[in-house]
Amino acid sequence: MPARSHITMSVDSHSHTIKKIGPLSFVKSLWRILAGKPRVPPSLQDNPLLNIILKRRSVRSFADREIPDDVFSAILEAGRLAPSTVNLQTWAFAVFTADSWRETFGSAIPFKGQRAVIVMGDTHRDKLIAEAFPASPLVEYTLGVMNASLAAMNMNIAAEALGVSSVMLSETGRSGLLDASYLKERLGLPDAVIPLMTIVFGYARGPYPPMPPKLPLDQICFQRKYREADSAIMEDWLAQMIAGYKASHLSSSFEAQLRIYQSKIGKAEADLERMVLGRRVGGSGG
Amino acid sequence: MPARSHITMSVDSHSHTIKKIGPLSFVKSLWRILAGKPRVPPSLQDNPLLNIILKRRSVRSFADREIPDDVFSAILEAGRLAPSTVNLQTWAFAVFTADSWRETFGSAIPFKGQRAVIVMGDTHRDKLIAEAFPASPLVEYTLGVMNASLAAMNMNIAAEALGVSSVMLSETGRSGLLDASYLKERLGLPDAVIPLMTIVFGYARGPYPPMPPKLPLDQICFQRKYREADSAIMEDWLAQMIAGYKASHLSSSFEAQLRIYQSKIGKAEADLERMVLGRRVGGSGG
Repeated sequence: MPARSHITMSVDSHSHTIKKIGPLSFVKSLWRILAGKPRVPPSLQDNPLLNIILKRRSVRSFADREIPDDVFSAILEAGRLAPSTVNLQTWAFAVFTADSWRETFGSAIPFKGQRAVIVMGDTHRDKLIAEAFPASPLVEYTLGVMNASLAAMNMNIAAEALGVSSVMLSETGRSGLLDASYLKERLGLPDAVIPLMTIVFGYARGPYPPMPPKLPLDQICFQRKYREADSAIMEDWLAQMIAGYKASHLSSSFEAQLRIYQSKIGKAEADLERMVLGRRVGGSGG
Repeated sequence: MPARSHITMSVDSHSHTIKKIGPLSFVKSLWRILAGKPRVPPSLQDNPLLNIILKRRSVRSFADREIPDDVFSAILEAGRLAPSTVNLQTWAFAVFTADSWRETFGSAIPFKGQRAVIVMGDTHRDKLIAEAFPASPLVEYTLGVMNASLAAMNMNIAAEALGVSSVMLSETGRSGLLDASYLKERLGLPDAVIPLMTIVFGYARGPYPPMPPKLPLDQICFQRKYREADSAIMEDWLAQMIAGYKASHLSSSFEAQLRIYQSKIGKAEADLERMVLGRRVGGSGG
């Protein structure tokens, strides 16, 4: 078990993985990203809805164009009508305009989005009428996270269907799970309401960026028995991630992004432990 | 805090809630379910994908008609291309035909579906190349659940776009989170791979059932500060749930369904605690 005190990233220690990326390998990895299109069977290539779903991208650059109220309410409706365990609808949405976000957080919506929704797992509301999850904080939490995520994806696709782009954020600008305790205080959330992510909505400025490197289907699917991933394919994926970041974030890197993420994980873990399991962190935890 | 040893359901103790449902109230609740259509602004009613998203339903009755391989692979492709935290793709899909399900579990796919996908949060695969979540089991688990659920919803909508219906199951027929330890053993899953749900796919037999009662948008959304739900609206929702179950499941009830669910929660909690937090349950836990 890893030591709790020492937060490291083993991509650093696997220096052979990173050193391998010379100029030629870098270009090759970039080429593979650009070639990584959705694989749609020829018979289905004309299905417009499937195309919208498969061409969806996380967009981080938005035009200065407002989202009409009826469009935004249709997006929220997709969240409202998402499926959930025993139809318990264990979610809550904090909805923001550019102005109300600024009033609440003192800054613009990340990437200058026009609207934002903070998606929360909410098992607090059901407690008004039923003790649906007696003494089972992890099951309760899991179902809250799962259902809220279903609602988030439904909103995301509904937005795409309406020509609105979006990105789901879990750490940028104090916007998600890694800042759960900050958001809980700022939004006045009860115990069983846990912020998971912020979805930022807007009209894309310019064309969609290339798809980030996705693992091939045979690495993520199996039949009958779990099959270990192929480490060569995983290292190839890592090389593509690193090359893709270098090409699209001139002043950053995938490793730096992971490191920012990891710098917040320790506090987030302690916060979650307190919020989900209802007790202070102490002792060995081992 | 509820006592850990005594698993009850407070809908039982709130007997006024249940007694209120006399014949007239029952008919009224049913009527409200039938009237509960998606609320789409008139300007957007012609959008085909939005309609598919909002008219999606959990379908539990499938025709004896096979799903072609190209259609099923396009559904999996939607899972593969779902968004995820730092593009880590923390999911795995166990895919089944009717035959391979029967060989694995000794029974038909629930509701006689034609294909099934067990969706898992998988943070095991990334460990081949990076220690992405050092010593933070709850953060790691949450992101695994969140991302896998995004992929699940993307598959669900892609299926709808292709005319294929589905239902996400978390407890029927040993198919999800509440049977995680059973599924882990049966599928040979490593520690950091947690089964969350089974999505059953097939062509719907007959028209879609009415939408189960959904909470109004102003109960699940708020601005700036969390707003407590209205308990009258929650009790009205509960009355609709009870009436809807009574009308559609002649031999069952919502309370019975919740009770089945709750009967499995204690073991599921202990299993999750061991799987997620990596330790045996013991002591008071309080």
